[in-house]
Amino acid sequence: MSDFKSTYDPGVQVSMDDVLCLHRNENLLVGRDWTVDAARDLVEQAAISSYPDATCLPLRAAIAELHGVRAEQVFLGNGADEVLSDLFSVLRGTYDCMHVLDVRFKVYDLLAERLGFSQEVLPGDAFETGHIDPTGFQGLAVVDSPNAITGRSVPTDELMRLATDGDSFVIWDNVYGEYGHDSIPTPLPTNMAFVRSFSKFYGMAGLRLGYCVADSSLIERMLAQKDVFNVNGLAQVMAMEAIRRHASFEDLRDELVANRDQLVKGLEQLGFSVLPSNSVGVLATHPSHSGASLQAALLERKIAVRRFDDDPIRDHIRITVAPMAQIEHFLVTLADCLKAL
Amino acid sequence: MSDFKSTYDPGVQVSMDDVLCLHRNENLLVGRDWTVDAARDLVEQAAISSYPDATCLPLRAAIAELHGVRAEQVFLGNGADEVLSDLFSVLRGTYDCMHVLDVRFKVYDLLAERLGFSQEVLPGDAFETGHIDPTGFQGLAVVDSPNAITGRSVPTDELMRLATDGDSFVIWDNVYGEYGHDSIPTPLPTNMAFVRSFSKFYGMAGLRLGYCVADSSLIERMLAQKDVFNVNGLAQVMAMEAIRRHASFEDLRDELVANRDQLVKGLEQLGFSVLPSNSVGVLATHPSHSGASLQAALLERKIAVRRFDDDPIRDHIRITVAPMAQIEHFLVTLADCLKAL
Repeated sequence: MSDFKSTYDPGVQVSMDDVLCLHRNENLLVGRDWTVDAARDLVEQAAISSYPDATCLPLRAAIAELHGVRAEQVFLGNGADEVLSDLFSVLRGTYDCMHVLDVRFKVYDLLAERLGFSQEVLPGDAFETGHIDPTGFQGLAVVDSPNAITGRSVPTDELMRLATDGDSFVIWDNVYGEYGHDSIPTPLPTNMAFVRSFSKFYGMAGLRLGYCVADSSLIERMLAQKDVFNVNGLAQVMAMEAIRRHASFEDLRDELVANRDQLVKGLEQLGFSVLPSNSVGVLATHPSHSGASLQAALLERKIAVRRFDDDPIRDHIRITVAPMAQIEHFLVTLADCLKAL
Repeated sequence: MSDFKSTYDPGVQVSMDDVLCLHRNENLLVGRDWTVDAARDLVEQAAISSYPDATCLPLRAAIAELHGVRAEQVFLGNGADEVLSDLFSVLRGTYDCMHVLDVRFKVYDLLAERLGFSQEVLPGDAFETGHIDPTGFQGLAVVDSPNAITGRSVPTDELMRLATDGDSFVIWDNVYGEYGHDSIPTPLPTNMAFVRSFSKFYGMAGLRLGYCVADSSLIERMLAQKDVFNVNGLAQVMAMEAIRRHASFEDLRDELVANRDQLVKGLEQLGFSVLPSNSVGVLATHPSHSGASLQAALLERKIAVRRFDDDPIRDHIRITVAPMAQIEHFLVTLADCLKAL
């Protein structure tokens, strides 16, 4: 219906009920039970019949405590996508160009077009080598690390060096950061914003909650551009609860990382090359079969995986890490595909 | 903390638990029970652990059916404030100035400043006479009718005449429209947007859901500027349920209108002048007492009412319509204040 929808494919088209969905950027291990149970418990407290807390201060304070920063350094948005959009809007006043990785979250390209940024790829080859060359960097950089598509991380010291020049600004899009055991740089440079989400690690994508941590003067400028009452009341209350349960989500993260290792091992045994991933999915390519043929063969067997049409990832498929039984089913089915192709 | 917050006072500062809150733009009759019960029932279906339906098509279709339009004419946002912000953003490309009522929703002024619109007051005197003069109007008009502050409605034919010139555009902010028995103009002019909310009539302000109905080409432009996944999953499902229960909300509206009449009558008996209201609050002024002294005297007696510092409403207080027992308590307390002042 819109131009935006036609260019950003969030990977949600599969509607066959019996398809195993391994094609989305979601944490499949966290499941839906906790959100259903917690929402039922908390909905009275969330007071969704009234306007939500406009300042979101209790939640901002809880997030600040999690990262060892101050509440004034935390900005909440209706999903990390909106936080990124708000960040880019404010930074557009200073920068004309955004510098990005060679393979990157597609939404940056859409936001660049919408806000009139030109785009340049950061020196180095993050896809091939995992590294960028930050030497002498000047400007605005936005780096999704762990990467939204490849799952790969750019080394933190390379990210930090992008912020060396005080007139530069770095957005570290770290929405998969918990899976790479990342933590916020201490102290956080005043010219860096650190972006996180409640959609992946805590598994509450449907309530739309993302945030960034940055210098309080930047946060103040972002708040001045923001509607009041923007973050829904249930999301605020659920996020506080999620933070209280942080340790149990770390256990799930550890399980996911172990499953990811098994998935990578299984793919490699089937002859795939797999990029090292710190995220919830792995990107893999086979020497003898195109990504499109593998994706189609899997879908015939009722497994959805993600594929992108762009170089250099055209012949890769991306598989979301799942519970072990599903990974085993996937690997057996994939072996079957390879025999049939 | 932000400039925005310091200029827009949403009327939420009262935190004493035992204060009767008659100072907010909320439907006090709808109550919180239905939202709590429905959310508990619907949270499983809402699937808040997954990304919400990015196109929101089922809900847009339900809203379209309610108004006799097509789903492509419906745009959803995270609260009517966000819908207004998105509308203004798209229209900023065409218009430099927004024409508004003399007394109006404060958020227009903030959005004008944020987006670089100048503002002019529409000819006529909506506050004094309830009328504007649309003769020969050209440009962008945004009219909150029923009015966010006074509760007064501008006659529909005057609103429609603002849209006579095809190069003009009219935003009819009708978020209180159900209390004035308004309906969408049929056919809706291609240069008019009709804005509604789920916060008032359906009483689900905490889930943040507003919408506008407009020409599909405008909606398409708005969608192109919009993040995907912007509307949270529970709000989508709850709104569908609210529309299914529309008739029961109409009953509550009828009760509210009857209570409003009683409130106006009581205020007049105490010597107040009361503006005719089609909204959830009434604006009243007393010949012998300032608005500030009345507000303070009521707050001493644990009743919060709203007051604005601007002319011509400086000496008015606004009282939100409440259940009859609370209205009676308010009127008795107010009589007591008048004796003491």
